[in-house]
Amino acid sequence: MTAALSTRLTKQLGIAHPIISAPMALAAGGALAAAVTRAGGLGLIGGGYGNSDWIRTQFEAAGAERVGVGFITWSVQRSPGVVAEALALNPVAVMLSFGDPAAFADQIKDAGATLICQCQNLNHVEQAVRAGADIIVAQGSEAGGHGAFRGTLSLVPEVADFLSTRSPETLLVAAGGIADGRALAASLLLGADGVLMGTRLWASSEAVVHPRHHETIVASNGDDTIRTSTPDIARGLDWPAEFTARIRRNAFTERWHGDEQSLAANTAVEGPRYSAAFADGDPDNAGVFFGEAAGLIHSIEPAGSIIERVIAEAVAVLRSGASYLR
Amino acid sequence: MTAALSTRLTKQLGIAHPIISAPMALAAGGALAAAVTRAGGLGLIGGGYGNSDWIRTQFEAAGAERVGVGFITWSVQRSPGVVAEALALNPVAVMLSFGDPAAFADQIKDAGATLICQCQNLNHVEQAVRAGADIIVAQGSEAGGHGAFRGTLSLVPEVADFLSTRSPETLLVAAGGIADGRALAASLLLGADGVLMGTRLWASSEAVVHPRHHETIVASNGDDTIRTSTPDIARGLDWPAEFTARIRRNAFTERWHGDEQSLAANTAVEGPRYSAAFADGDPDNAGVFFGEAAGLIHSIEPAGSIIERVIAEAVAVLRSGASYLR
Repeated sequence: MTAALSTRLTKQLGIAHPIISAPMALAAGGALAAAVTRAGGLGLIGGGYGNSDWIRTQFEAAGAERVGVGFITWSVQRSPGVVAEALALNPVAVMLSFGDPAAFADQIKDAGATLICQCQNLNHVEQAVRAGADIIVAQGSEAGGHGAFRGTLSLVPEVADFLSTRSPETLLVAAGGIADGRALAASLLLGADGVLMGTRLWASSEAVVHPRHHETIVASNGDDTIRTSTPDIARGLDWPAEFTARIRRNAFTERWHGDEQSLAANTAVEGPRYSAAFADGDPDNAGVFFGEAAGLIHSIEPAGSIIERVIAEAVAVLRSGASYLR
Repeated sequence: MTAALSTRLTKQLGIAHPIISAPMALAAGGALAAAVTRAGGLGLIGGGYGNSDWIRTQFEAAGAERVGVGFITWSVQRSPGVVAEALALNPVAVMLSFGDPAAFADQIKDAGATLICQCQNLNHVEQAVRAGADIIVAQGSEAGGHGAFRGTLSLVPEVADFLSTRSPETLLVAAGGIADGRALAASLLLGADGVLMGTRLWASSEAVVHPRHHETIVASNGDDTIRTSTPDIARGLDWPAEFTARIRRNAFTERWHGDEQSLAANTAVEGPRYSAAFADGDPDNAGVFFGEAAGLIHSIEPAGSIIERVIAEAVAVLRSGASYLR
């Protein structure tokens, strides 16, 4: 057997590798979640805004693999039955992001699923601990898609310190900008029990991502993204102001970022234009949802190969740490 | 002797610990730089916008300790004699940040000083390598004071990859959000040869910081800062748009952030008001310049104690990395 890592996360979840896949809305279907679980991590289906039919189809696609599901909390609060319907599909874990998890926490834990709460600041962590989260994901601003402003490198140890006094049994997972074994190893030393990877697995062959979007990330570096609310305005999504989406800078963001009021006033025209461009995979006129880790990604590969390499790198990097000791 | 770390940075600079202090304009005087060097790191005086008299006084304050100096590049380009005057004081290193270093690089290297270039993105790194930088500081957005948008955790490995192919002899130092041994250890695993610490040393007894500002950082967490151009507008400083300052959120930022045009139109009144508040140490009505690492800082201590603890922590954390290997 090849080298591997053992952490509180691998033990608690009964998985081989301390890697969870981000439940990316639209992009993380059953095929990706199953591939991540099969590779030894924990795969999460992107329940997103809560379309029960889509979620059921993706659980079917995941087949017999143990997978979980994630939701956008403020959105599913508007159609709360969605969470109960997903629990009937026996997810191993449910991840809640972007909103107070209180309304769903008991229901999830009573169903026997692991409650994962993604947090972008210390207030969120306080809410998550109060709700009884089993695992907290501390997500830094580097992340693709929705998030907030704290950087991963300082957020993770600050959350680790908070948990060590307030709730030491709660596990901590780092997210945001993590695409290789260096970042996994670094995250463990910062106090995390594992990592959640989004962008790196968005750039996998199993992700539900248009091939032209995949070509775009391979051609991009980490400087090419921006945090903006423009894709949410174009789509008419009612995101709380504290969260923005990190996407590729392109003609769409050049046109509308900084002029959000005009975009909001023109959604009758711009909304359908955005949707058509997204469906076409047009990388210039709709959101291309990836994060700063783009600069570390040079090809689209099967999720299993990605995870295998990340673990091998992390093992090598952790071993190399001893070489600095004098 | 206690445990210590050895990296390419300690060897190249002939220092005991892979820690450089940020040349924080106004805050990093000769006392801080000397204390950092005395503790085994490399101390840099904050030459900032280039006041030759102040710089000379601070070199005198540093006494016989080997220290360097840092400048804000776009600013000293307007009074280039300042760099030559500083070189006459025999700095061991000169750090240039925020602008193309080309105009000063040869002069610095010809004087026998180590050229350190702070970079916020890959274009900056390209410029720095072209200028012949000996050391590149990859500064993430978490940093206090001026910076840009990339997060430290993804910027550092991306720059490491760039240098490994383009200029492997150039050293790499991580900055932004680094306040303890966990972050130092993590930075080494991400590919850095050492770290540059600003906020943590701003919160030291040797820094030129008003006691009320020191009280403010101790009472703050990492969520309490914001990146904004408002302090630069109030001070009439002509910063390039790509750089903003991370400062404590306070009444001043609540009033003006998002309404920069009004501030710019009212500098005749607001400028002197800002200056008076800053001189008073008023934490509400002027910029308080610290970064996201505030959440990891709970007391003001001598720089030497800080460095000693960071190294001891980093050694312990690097050793603990082996415990994850299965």
